[in-house]
Amino acid sequence: MKLGTVRVDGEQRVAVAVDDGHAVVLYPGLTVTGLIEDWGPARAAVERAVEDGADEAVPVGTLTWLPPVPRPGKVICVALNNSANADRIMSGPSHPATFNKPATSLLGHNQPIRLKKKFGRVHPEPELAVVVGTGGSDIDRDDAMSHVFGYTIINDLTSPTMRAQDTFHYRAIHPSKDGSAGIEYVDTWVTYSGRYKGSDGFGPIGPWIVTADEIPDPHALTVTCVHQGRLITEDSTKNLTHKVADVVSFMSGYQTLEPGDIIAMGTALKASSSGGGAVQNVNLTTLGGRIEVTISGIGTLSNPVELP
Amino acid sequence: MKLGTVRVDGEQRVAVAVDDGHAVVLYPGLTVTGLIEDWGPARAAVERAVEDGADEAVPVGTLTWLPPVPRPGKVICVALNNSANADRIMSGPSHPATFNKPATSLLGHNQPIRLKKKFGRVHPEPELAVVVGTGGSDIDRDDAMSHVFGYTIINDLTSPTMRAQDTFHYRAIHPSKDGSAGIEYVDTWVTYSGRYKGSDGFGPIGPWIVTADEIPDPHALTVTCVHQGRLITEDSTKNLTHKVADVVSFMSGYQTLEPGDIIAMGTALKASSSGGGAVQNVNLTTLGGRIEVTISGIGTLSNPVELP
Repeated sequence: MKLGTVRVDGEQRVAVAVDDGHAVVLYPGLTVTGLIEDWGPARAAVERAVEDGADEAVPVGTLTWLPPVPRPGKVICVALNNSANADRIMSGPSHPATFNKPATSLLGHNQPIRLKKKFGRVHPEPELAVVVGTGGSDIDRDDAMSHVFGYTIINDLTSPTMRAQDTFHYRAIHPSKDGSAGIEYVDTWVTYSGRYKGSDGFGPIGPWIVTADEIPDPHALTVTCVHQGRLITEDSTKNLTHKVADVVSFMSGYQTLEPGDIIAMGTALKASSSGGGAVQNVNLTTLGGRIEVTISGIGTLSNPVELP
Repeated sequence: MKLGTVRVDGEQRVAVAVDDGHAVVLYPGLTVTGLIEDWGPARAAVERAVEDGADEAVPVGTLTWLPPVPRPGKVICVALNNSANADRIMSGPSHPATFNKPATSLLGHNQPIRLKKKFGRVHPEPELAVVVGTGGSDIDRDDAMSHVFGYTIINDLTSPTMRAQDTFHYRAIHPSKDGSAGIEYVDTWVTYSGRYKGSDGFGPIGPWIVTADEIPDPHALTVTCVHQGRLITEDSTKNLTHKVADVVSFMSGYQTLEPGDIIAMGTALKASSSGGGAVQNVNLTTLGGRIEVTISGIGTLSNPVELP
């Protein structure tokens, strides 16, 4: 099933996409987060409501789509998680490394990405996103997939300009190695992602969540990114270094997962064989236009860019 | 007024601290977030309720305190924001640099910090936290203080072990400087804060929020950190490099602020003159014990450490 959130007359409603181009808006009072928390018993009721409302299905393009989970408790993003990153990494961890994007950075399908000049360069990053169903901590890898409610698409917009600006080269305080109460300084680099990953509009997500039963293998999906009609990226989720089960299990040992949490699995960055180029070349702040991410079995997330 | 959230019989209730040692639990149905959103009209009603309930005030220590805003939309943390950092920074921005901590990392006053061996070294970072009242974006500096609902205390627990592990040295893809569609590689360091700042228990916060009217100058507060009864840090919020109004105004230009959002202002790190030492020497993962942060005019946030 494809579950999303739309705004109708100023109110949030759940919408279910019934085919490539149509969706049924469900009766008021439901939320996607509520359905995720209660999916066992709720699913049959939703299926009935969709059947009953089939005659009133409306074109997807006529609806105002919000992030499928409008205000997730957290958005965990996995960094540098594509096999194509490997030859560029001189040193780094062999486990998933993550940062958190605030909910205010999220944006629904078709909503405009409003970029400000001070954001500097901003490029798209097409990614598969996992939506957490049952929460938990210290989840076994063998059990991890049962905590996945479904999948959606996220465009993890990134400003390399702000990344460079918000990098410190500094001497970190460490305790003395001799075991005394003294300290020593260690030459360190730190980068802070608040602005370069978390600014308003940096997280287009949706249009909807496809429930896990419809995606038997999340590592067999094609991911494409199209800018102004030109194919940029053509990749597959098979190239993710850390797999969905690895990431869910590993991160639940540090950040307790809750229903509706989002895990962005990392950028699909393989350039299109027809000469797409790197996503880093698509500077949305100067180029504007419409940016689209398509993942097979899920759909297409498309957003226009509004320049200052 | 001092507003906090407590748990009574499994339900969240608002509690108001009426003196150093006592609090009145308000009638069910209120939330701190709701009060923040509606503070203009709500304040008088809360004052009346506190007066009416004065006879039923209970000792602070008998209550189960939750984070004052139990599930803030976001927690913005300002990095390296103390004048004492300056001589250790070889290069870095002259504006506030931030990261986001997930709500699941927050912990109420007196709740145990449960550390896992795999967290490595974990040290305390005592900080003043701003609680956003009226939200907004692109807030003028002159208007910024009117968006502050109040102040609380946060202990921004940090694992330098996980920070080092989650640092990549890699060749970032940048567009060619010659303006062609080509790319070039730029030697880059990036650090991801998901685990080292965002793990469960890494954000003790509270006990309560002191409304802004009671803190006329947030840059004249003493900040102390005590571990196992030993004074470690003795600092003042006057040493914050970027002031509250600067940070509120600057960050609202990137991340839209919402009522109840938390902004952690950066670590108070001046060692106690009686030989406190650096907070980095207080490795809670091996030392355990109780860690306390006191800020004048707000109160004391105290948490025991539970070792694996």
